[in-house]
Amino acid sequence: MTSEKDIKHMKAALSLARRGLGRCAPNPAVGCVIVKNGVVIARARTADGGRPHAEAIALEMAGDQAKGATLYATLEPCSHQGGTPPCTQAIIDSGVKRVVIGTLDVDPRVKGKSIKIMQESGIDVVQGVCEEECRQMHLGFINRITKNRPYVTIKTACTIDGKVASASGDSQWITGERARHHVHMIRSQHDAILIGVGTAIVDNPRLTTRVDGIEHNPVRIVLDSNMSIDPKSRLVQSAKETPLWVLYSEDGPNKKTLEDAGVILHQVDCYDIEEILRLLADEGINRVLIEGGAQVHGSFLREGHFDELLLYRAPSLLGGDGMSFTAHLEIFTLAERHNFVRIGEQVLGDDILERYRPLKDMGAM
Amino acid sequence: MTSEKDIKHMKAALSLARRGLGRCAPNPAVGCVIVKNGVVIARARTADGGRPHAEAIALEMAGDQAKGATLYATLEPCSHQGGTPPCTQAIIDSGVKRVVIGTLDVDPRVKGKSIKIMQESGIDVVQGVCEEECRQMHLGFINRITKNRPYVTIKTACTIDGKVASASGDSQWITGERARHHVHMIRSQHDAILIGVGTAIVDNPRLTTRVDGIEHNPVRIVLDSNMSIDPKSRLVQSAKETPLWVLYSEDGPNKKTLEDAGVILHQVDCYDIEEILRLLADEGINRVLIEGGAQVHGSFLREGHFDELLLYRAPSLLGGDGMSFTAHLEIFTLAERHNFVRIGEQVLGDDILERYRPLKDMGAM
Repeated sequence: MTSEKDIKHMKAALSLARRGLGRCAPNPAVGCVIVKNGVVIARARTADGGRPHAEAIALEMAGDQAKGATLYATLEPCSHQGGTPPCTQAIIDSGVKRVVIGTLDVDPRVKGKSIKIMQESGIDVVQGVCEEECRQMHLGFINRITKNRPYVTIKTACTIDGKVASASGDSQWITGERARHHVHMIRSQHDAILIGVGTAIVDNPRLTTRVDGIEHNPVRIVLDSNMSIDPKSRLVQSAKETPLWVLYSEDGPNKKTLEDAGVILHQVDCYDIEEILRLLADEGINRVLIEGGAQVHGSFLREGHFDELLLYRAPSLLGGDGMSFTAHLEIFTLAERHNFVRIGEQVLGDDILERYRPLKDMGAM
Repeated sequence: MTSEKDIKHMKAALSLARRGLGRCAPNPAVGCVIVKNGVVIARARTADGGRPHAEAIALEMAGDQAKGATLYATLEPCSHQGGTPPCTQAIIDSGVKRVVIGTLDVDPRVKGKSIKIMQESGIDVVQGVCEEECRQMHLGFINRITKNRPYVTIKTACTIDGKVASASGDSQWITGERARHHVHMIRSQHDAILIGVGTAIVDNPRLTTRVDGIEHNPVRIVLDSNMSIDPKSRLVQSAKETPLWVLYSEDGPNKKTLEDAGVILHQVDCYDIEEILRLLADEGINRVLIEGGAQVHGSFLREGHFDELLLYRAPSLLGGDGMSFTAHLEIFTLAERHNFVRIGEQVLGDDILERYRPLKDMGAM
């Protein structure tokens, strides 16, 4: 039986999970709450780097108090021996009498098995509380396991006429300070940020997370077919402090210099988005943020390989000769256009952040 | 003294005024409410075509009951002898004891004078209740009198990347049924609709108001420098039922055919937006809706000759080779971009209508 209390506690677990997004890969960022006699006695999320798991931390926090308590977890607890003893066994050992689960794990080593093991130990297990929210929360991990690709978020900052730069390429800054600050927070919720080498050359960005209190920097990835990134760029110069991967198709003359600077080189077909995403998944990336430019956005949009589009929109206009946020998509009839569903909106100073999902991913909606 | 009751009744008068927008030119669409002992005894708006005025209709409705009542008017009542006896005199004769005014008339024959006349007759006059809303409501009339141009609304329907058509020009329909229905309602709130001849040729539109219960059609205006509109177009073919003006710079071979079809021809410099707007003001147009295409939108935007931008946005994307909603504006640095303030938003099915004002018009905001 699911009660309103179950939903309330699962939402608390979800908000803990959210804080782990971008920090726990390759593991899912799970949230866990333990409640006894109506009182929350422990709350945890999966630790940075993916270990210990949320359930293990929460059980440790609860100690003997866990006996007879209810444990809420956004994702089915693990039951296989990984880097840590399985959480399922720890739950059974703790004397917890009821377990409420958001969504089933998709890892074939776990899926449904943990529930069965706990039930056989006499624990009352409820599943599917806030299921859709929990599934969304873990979609990076889920996509990686089931589709062999990360959760892909495309981000752009544009005018009301969809332009990211003036006719001459002036682009700093389209949006205001609050929107730019928000981007840094969004970066911290991803395991990796990906840009094209064109953007690396033109903007010479750092792609770090500059928000007070957030130390976490995602892996920075540059799509750079012929290895033309400038060894003097901010990205390369900071590769020893913050990981930088260069995805290339053909060796360039700077290969040795880049390696010496600490850059991780991955050879792929830079025009094959599926291959790129497969590489990221193999490397344990659950969530990647695509920050452009237009060519890179175009490639991901054209092939439909993305889960979410973040549009930071400034109340300004640059005209038909401004630079569009995607490359040419060669869409000739409206029937071929890409359709979305708006899933959220947030005012950020003078700007607005709109969140979209591809319509095709929204099922019957 | 202004009370909450005054604000409530003025808002009622404003909602009456709104129903007259697009129907009363060259007169302002005024709303009027008469209240006695807390009971509304009369409500009226200026009639279609601008006469009788709202106050005259409301006083007629109130009859003897007006004695000792309070009259609310969104705009200062007239005091000059026009097509009808001045409302100020009718108010005095009615025995109304208190008059509440939204905003002063800007017509130099009226401004402040009516208030003085009524006060001298012993009427208690309050002014400035909901002043900014009343000023906005009458901005078409105010602009025409003070700036010699109508209130200019630019309207576009575009994708989230600011495109109005696919790479090959397919544009029907970018937005859904509810948004398109809303456009018809917005048309009915304007005295005129203006498009470029390019749009007239490509879309062959009717530009009529097709909403159940709304019989009013604005004047349709085509900017057509060398008089190249097709005499067989829907616009020309319907010119006898619904007014069609063709603004041209040079005579074309179809001049006689167009005149015979009922088209009103106005010779102007079609590239001089100020001259065009002056012509419209001279012809008594208070509010004009600019429906495109990109060249026409570009001309109005480039010169800043507009008061409001309506963006009907569909949750779809057409890519960098789609057609932008404005022509090239030759903006090279971000400092030169056009800035706006978002003043409203409305969900229309899957689409969103956003309303913007130029930042420069927002004073200290």
